[in-house]
Amino acid sequence: MRRIPIMCACLALLASCTTAKPEANEPEASARYTFWRPAPVQNAAEPSNVIKESLASDWRPIAPENLLIMELQGGGQVTIELASNFAPIHVANIKALARGGWWNPASVYRIQENYVVQWGLNESDKPLPAGVVKAPPAEYDRALAGLDIRPLGFPDSYAPMVGHADGWPVGYDPEAGRAWLAHCYGMVGVGRDLAPDTGTGGELYAVIGHSPRHLDLNIATVGRVIEGIDRLTAHPRGTEALGFIKDPKNHIRIARIRLAAEIPAAQRPAFEVMRTDTAAFSAYVTGRANRGGGFFNRPAGGVDLCNALVPTRRKT
Amino acid sequence: MRRIPIMCACLALLASCTTAKPEANEPEASARYTFWRPAPVQNAAEPSNVIKESLASDWRPIAPENLLIMELQGGGQVTIELASNFAPIHVANIKALARGGWWNPASVYRIQENYVVQWGLNESDKPLPAGVVKAPPAEYDRALAGLDIRPLGFPDSYAPMVGHADGWPVGYDPEAGRAWLAHCYGMVGVGRDLAPDTGTGGELYAVIGHSPRHLDLNIATVGRVIEGIDRLTAHPRGTEALGFIKDPKNHIRIARIRLAAEIPAAQRPAFEVMRTDTAAFSAYVTGRANRGGGFFNRPAGGVDLCNALVPTRRKT
Repeated sequence: MRRIPIMCACLALLASCTTAKPEANEPEASARYTFWRPAPVQNAAEPSNVIKESLASDWRPIAPENLLIMELQGGGQVTIELASNFAPIHVANIKALARGGWWNPASVYRIQENYVVQWGLNESDKPLPAGVVKAPPAEYDRALAGLDIRPLGFPDSYAPMVGHADGWPVGYDPEAGRAWLAHCYGMVGVGRDLAPDTGTGGELYAVIGHSPRHLDLNIATVGRVIEGIDRLTAHPRGTEALGFIKDPKNHIRIARIRLAAEIPAAQRPAFEVMRTDTAAFSAYVTGRANRGGGFFNRPAGGVDLCNALVPTRRKT
Repeated sequence: MRRIPIMCACLALLASCTTAKPEANEPEASARYTFWRPAPVQNAAEPSNVIKESLASDWRPIAPENLLIMELQGGGQVTIELASNFAPIHVANIKALARGGWWNPASVYRIQENYVVQWGLNESDKPLPAGVVKAPPAEYDRALAGLDIRPLGFPDSYAPMVGHADGWPVGYDPEAGRAWLAHCYGMVGVGRDLAPDTGTGGELYAVIGHSPRHLDLNIATVGRVIEGIDRLTAHPRGTEALGFIKDPKNHIRIARIRLAAEIPAAQRPAFEVMRTDTAAFSAYVTGRANRGGGFFNRPAGGVDLCNALVPTRRKT
């Protein structure tokens, strides 16, 4: 019985600690205490103003080799940044599939409300291009060493720690020395069958709902949609289990998927991502955690990883 | 300098506490420590099985008086449960607007990617029906007393505590004695202008992206979509600022909005919500926090409030 007051006294050094009334149906004891207490910041900079006032040096380009461009039949395109530092073999596969024209054509065959949209060839037997590794290892996390992580500064419901590294949202565990990409809205992963299958990269999905962070560490996360996610979301949901679209006639046709690097330099689109090791990004996170202006009366004093999406912008 | 080891030692009673390497661009000191450490549960029940095996007594009906039915022109409907215990004056307004036929017809005039869809009459001068309070108080939170909250059991990025009360996702602050509805996917709120305006209830929105919890405590949250949210999401996004749809011809027409209570009992739809004060709901939360089965290799050991959406089901 003495442990509770001791914990409270110590936690108070960090944040206040309050007992809630015990419930009939109560979870583990620790849940009866506040894990932290938000400390709202009044008059924080508006995130949009932080972006507006940022310097050119606050941004990094997306290499054309890491930019995947998916062109839909009938117009519209979706651009995706590949995270080559997190799932290198899966990303190399995706690049080989693009260069080999494997997806030309392909289709969006799954749209599940509040979850994911998925595309590719859906269990086709089409031979894989040269260079594609058929059974990549489970690249679901990586070494923490080598990543320059900016801690978010707020608790997370899934990971011991979360933050941003090189423009990506990550969960990490300093004790285990591991880090992984977080399944935020717009993140792209590799569809797979049951373990030990890890997917080749031929079937991809993007998150289109509340960030399904339970997928973290369970699947190869390989990138994020930079532009055009509305081309994937603004369609009727699939009516089969898991949102699969029953009638192939209703699949959304993809004319081709290629790397920006395959397009002549003068014609390729170019994008930038806000650097996450800058004072500008810190101001952006503080602004996201403390929305103000004329509309918000009470800044939250906290933000979750997936509501602090790293800003991106089109250059050409 | 002595405070850090003391905190670590004390926090270790709750969870392990690890220092991460200090960053050049570092947020407040507390962020360098783990707030908690997930404790995954192997072989937790699958959430779908918990629902399948639940008892009739694990569910509560939605009163017809709290069920709003929005019929779209050309077919399709969206049903919404109203949270009369959280924003009673705004909810009473919505009921009066429905009974007065104020929205017949109305339209969806805003669809913002990864944020909200909004409907109503959009700044119409149409006189309000009798009984509608023109300037309701800011019902953005309520007394904690009187709510039977089941704590979620995992940390939250926004609130000191989160959990579920009477089937609703809530944030709460035991110290302040206040509680509020959380802006999870599918939750419905009242559009408003700048403060002190709080909205009449005539303009409503539903969340269709990663849960924008920064809206909590800043707006009257009045309910959630129970069925048919895909009727709101599967449309082209508005191209104006904030996702407003420029051309009224592209608005989505709403034929009428009424309460289930206005429909003869034999014809009205009926829904149930899982009770959140039951062992079944606790098993459901544990299952959501520890996905298993053949697909998930590593249960998370945690879940955020908005990934533990309370199950609902249609009865008739």
